[in-house]
Amino acid sequence: MSPLEKLRERMAELSDLASVEMLLSWDQLVMMPEHGAGARAQQLGTLARLTHERATAPEIGAWLQELDGAPLGEPDADIARIARRDWERASRVPDELAVELARASADGQESWQAARARNDFAAFAPALERNVELARQRAGCLAQDGESPYDALLGDYDFGLRTDEVRRVFGELAGALEPLVAEAERHSPRVTLEVPVAAQQAAVASTLSRLGVDQASWRVDISAHPFTAWMGREDMRLTTRYNDGNVESLLSSLHEYGHALYERQTDPALARTNLGTGTSMSVHESQSKLWENHVARNPAFVELVAEELAGAGFSVEPQLLYAALVGVEPSAIRVSADPLTYPLHIVLRFELESALVNGELAVADLPAAWNDGMRRLLGVEVSSDAEGCLQDVHWGAGSFGYFPSYALGCLIAAQLWETMQAQLGSLEDELRRGELGRIQGWLGEHVHFYGRRLDTIPLLEQATGRGLEIEPFLRYVAPLAER
Amino acid sequence: MSPLEKLRERMAELSDLASVEMLLSWDQLVMMPEHGAGARAQQLGTLARLTHERATAPEIGAWLQELDGAPLGEPDADIARIARRDWERASRVPDELAVELARASADGQESWQAARARNDFAAFAPALERNVELARQRAGCLAQDGESPYDALLGDYDFGLRTDEVRRVFGELAGALEPLVAEAERHSPRVTLEVPVAAQQAAVASTLSRLGVDQASWRVDISAHPFTAWMGREDMRLTTRYNDGNVESLLSSLHEYGHALYERQTDPALARTNLGTGTSMSVHESQSKLWENHVARNPAFVELVAEELAGAGFSVEPQLLYAALVGVEPSAIRVSADPLTYPLHIVLRFELESALVNGELAVADLPAAWNDGMRRLLGVEVSSDAEGCLQDVHWGAGSFGYFPSYALGCLIAAQLWETMQAQLGSLEDELRRGELGRIQGWLGEHVHFYGRRLDTIPLLEQATGRGLEIEPFLRYVAPLAER
Repeated sequence: MSPLEKLRERMAELSDLASVEMLLSWDQLVMMPEHGAGARAQQLGTLARLTHERATAPEIGAWLQELDGAPLGEPDADIARIARRDWERASRVPDELAVELARASADGQESWQAARARNDFAAFAPALERNVELARQRAGCLAQDGESPYDALLGDYDFGLRTDEVRRVFGELAGALEPLVAEAERHSPRVTLEVPVAAQQAAVASTLSRLGVDQASWRVDISAHPFTAWMGREDMRLTTRYNDGNVESLLSSLHEYGHALYERQTDPALARTNLGTGTSMSVHESQSKLWENHVARNPAFVELVAEELAGAGFSVEPQLLYAALVGVEPSAIRVSADPLTYPLHIVLRFELESALVNGELAVADLPAAWNDGMRRLLGVEVSSDAEGCLQDVHWGAGSFGYFPSYALGCLIAAQLWETMQAQLGSLEDELRRGELGRIQGWLGEHVHFYGRRLDTIPLLEQATGRGLEIEPFLRYVAPLAER
Repeated sequence: MSPLEKLRERMAELSDLASVEMLLSWDQLVMMPEHGAGARAQQLGTLARLTHERATAPEIGAWLQELDGAPLGEPDADIARIARRDWERASRVPDELAVELARASADGQESWQAARARNDFAAFAPALERNVELARQRAGCLAQDGESPYDALLGDYDFGLRTDEVRRVFGELAGALEPLVAEAERHSPRVTLEVPVAAQQAAVASTLSRLGVDQASWRVDISAHPFTAWMGREDMRLTTRYNDGNVESLLSSLHEYGHALYERQTDPALARTNLGTGTSMSVHESQSKLWENHVARNPAFVELVAEELAGAGFSVEPQLLYAALVGVEPSAIRVSADPLTYPLHIVLRFELESALVNGELAVADLPAAWNDGMRRLLGVEVSSDAEGCLQDVHWGAGSFGYFPSYALGCLIAAQLWETMQAQLGSLEDELRRGELGRIQGWLGEHVHFYGRRLDTIPLLEQATGRGLEIEPFLRYVAPLAER
C-alpha cells in the first residue's frame, strides 16, 4: 500500500473506533442496566487507550513525511493536512499525562456529583484544583507560538480560535445585552404552560417525522439529559425528555436534530476519513441552536406546533405557546435559560475558566467570583453553590474551553439564519406548513457538506461572506426583550 | 511491568474488546436502525482486525517465553497456559487467510439468505464450496499431531474434542433413539396451545424475575432470533420472541437465561482475564439446555407456569401445558424440534459437515445426502432444500464444527441434572414453588465457577465423576416417547 492508502486506512480505523465509542456511551445513557457501569468504564478506557495509541503512532508521522510535497488531489490533500495537525497535537501530550487526565476526569465527575448534592463546594475544590493543574500541564504541552494556556485548550473544541477574539466578542455581546435584559425585566415574566406529556410526545413525533426522522435510519429515545449520537449517517440517534409543565421536549428535540443533521449531511465522500464529522463545537452548537432558536421558536412554526398539540387533545393559542417558548427572565440556571440571557451564562463561565487556566483565579475564590458575575451580568442573586458554580459538570470532568462554543453557537446560528433568509427569501409560509426542505438543503450545501475541511471562521466567512458578528443575534433577541 | 503484568493487561484488553464486539452485535440485532448495517459491518470489521492483531502480536510470545518455567500461582498459571494455547492457535492462521475467511463468511451469509428465499441450492453452492475450501485451508494451518481437518475446526468451539469421539457418541445416540422415535410415532402427536402473547409475556416476566433477572443488572428484549449477550457480569442481556399459538417464548427465555447464568457465575477473580468466560460451546449449550429441558419442561415447574398463565388470564391444565412443551413428533426443522428428536438433526449435520471438510462429500451431493439422512434418522421426507439443507445459516457463514455442541449440550445437561439430583435430593417441591436457588448454586459451584480453566470433558468429569455419557439423556427422553 502507498503511504496515502495507509494513512486513509488508519483514518478509517480511527473513525470506526470513534463510532464504537459513541455507541458505548449512547448505550450507557439509554439502555445499559445501571450495574453495568463498572465494566463499561473499563471498556471505554480500553478503547480510549487503543485509540490514543493508534492516533499517535510514529508510523503516521512517517507516512506524512513521505507525502510531504507530493501532489495530492481533493480531499486527500485536506486529509493529510488535518491528519498532520491532529497527529502533532495528540503526540505532544505524553501517554502518562493522558492517563492521569482521564483518571482525574472520572474522579472529578464523581466528586462534583457528591458535592453538588450536598451543596458543598469545599468538598469539590481539591478535585477541581487537580483538574485545573492537569489542564495547565496539558496546555503547556500543546501551546505553540506564544499561545496562552487557555488558547491551547480552546483548540480541543474550536481549532484556530483565540482567547482574545472570544473576549472581544463576548465583551461586546455582554455590553449589548445589558440594556435588553433591563428592558425585558420591565415586561411580563415568562409564561409557563402545563402541556401533558402525551400531547408533547405526539407533537415531537410528528415534527421529527416532517424533518425526515424515520425508523430506517434514526432512533429517538428518552434519557435524563438530551443528547445526540451518530454511528454512521444512516444510524442517527437522538434523545429527548418529557416533563409535565413545560415544552422543553420540543425545543430539545429540535436542538438535537440540528446536531444530527449536521453529521448526516457531510459530504459522503468524507465518510470514514478524518474529515467526515462536524468541524468544531461552536459550529455544531450553531446547528442545534439554529433549529432550536430559529425554527422551533419561530412564530410561523409555532402555529403548526399548536395545531399538532390540538390534534393530540391539548388546545393552546399559538401566541400563548410562542410566549412560553421565548419569554425572557434572568435566572440562575444555564440549561433552562431563555434565548436572550443564555449567552450571558456562557460569558461568565468563559471569564472564570480562562482565569482559572491562565492562573489568574484561585479555585477557592471561584464561588465568590461566580456570584459576583451573576449579579453583574444577569442581576441574579445566587442562592447556593449548587445552583451556582456547581451547576455544570464540565469543570468536574476537566473540560476547559468547551463553554464558549455554547454562546458562539447562538451567534453563528443567527448569522447563518439571516444569510439563508437573504438568499432564499421569506421562509414563513414553509415554516407554517412544516416544509423544511429548503432550510435543510441550504445548511447541507453551505455548512454541513464541508465536514472538517474548513475551520469555524473560514466556514462562516464562506457561508455568510463575513466574519463572526453579534448583530444578527441581537436582531433576533431584541424583539424578545420588548414583549 | 513484569511479563505477567503485561500478559494480564493484554488479556484484559482482549476481554474488553470482546465485550465491545458483543455490544455492537447485540445493538445491531435489537436496537440499530436497519440502514445502519453498512457502517456497523465496517465497525465490526475494524474491531475484528484490531483484536486479531493484538491477540497474535509477537510480544505475547515473548512474554510467554519469559514466563516459561517461572513458578506461577493460581489463576496465573492457567492464564499463561491458555494464553499460550490461544496465541499459538491464532498465530498459525495467516492474516490474509483470516481476512479472506471473514469476507467469505459475509458473502456466504448473503448468498445463503437469497438462495433459501428462492429455494435454490445451486445458487448457494459456489459460496458453500468457497467456504469449505477456506475452512480446509484454515484446518491445514491449525491441525497438529495427525488431527484431521475436522478435528482442527472442532477446536474452535470445543478444545480437545476429537471427531472419532463425537462419531462414537453420536452413533450410539442415534442407535438408541431410533426405537424411541418409532415408539413416539405410535402415540398421539404434538399438542399445540394457543397462548395469547400478553399471557406469555406475563409468565416470562414473572419466571425470569424468580430467577433473579432484575433491571439493575439485566435487560430482556425482543429480537427475531433469541440470543444472549453479556458485557460484564452485571450487564447481562437476553432476548426472546413472542408468537401467538405456541409457548416457545417460555422455553427460549429459560434457554437464554442458562447461557447468561453461566457467564454471570464464573469466578469473579477471572473477570477481564482470558479465563472468565464459558469454556466451550458444548458446555454453554448444556447450560441453556439444562434450563430449557430440565427446568422449563419439568412437570413440577410447569404447574407453576400454569398458575402464572392463569393469573394473566389464560387458564390451562398443567398436564395440557406439559404436553405442549414435551410432545414428540419428528419434523424437518431443527429449531422447532422436540427434545427427543432434536439431537438427531445434529447427528445428521455432523455427519455431513465432517464429510465436507474432510473431503469425503462434494457440495453438489449435499442435498441428496441431507434428504437421505433425514429419512434414515428421523423418517422424515424433506419437501424442499429451503426446508432441508438450506435451513441453517452456519455453513453459509463458514462455521464448521459448531453443530455438535448443540447435541453434546443436551447430553451434558442431562448428565449434570442427574448428578445434581443425586447430590441435592429431590428438587420437585422447589421447582413447584419456583425456588431455584439450589439449582443456581450447584451449577455455579460445579460448572460456572471454573470459566475456561477446565475444558469440556475434564469439567464434566470433575462435576459428575464420569466422562460423557448418553444414558442420562436417554433416561430423560424415554418417558417422553411413551406419552
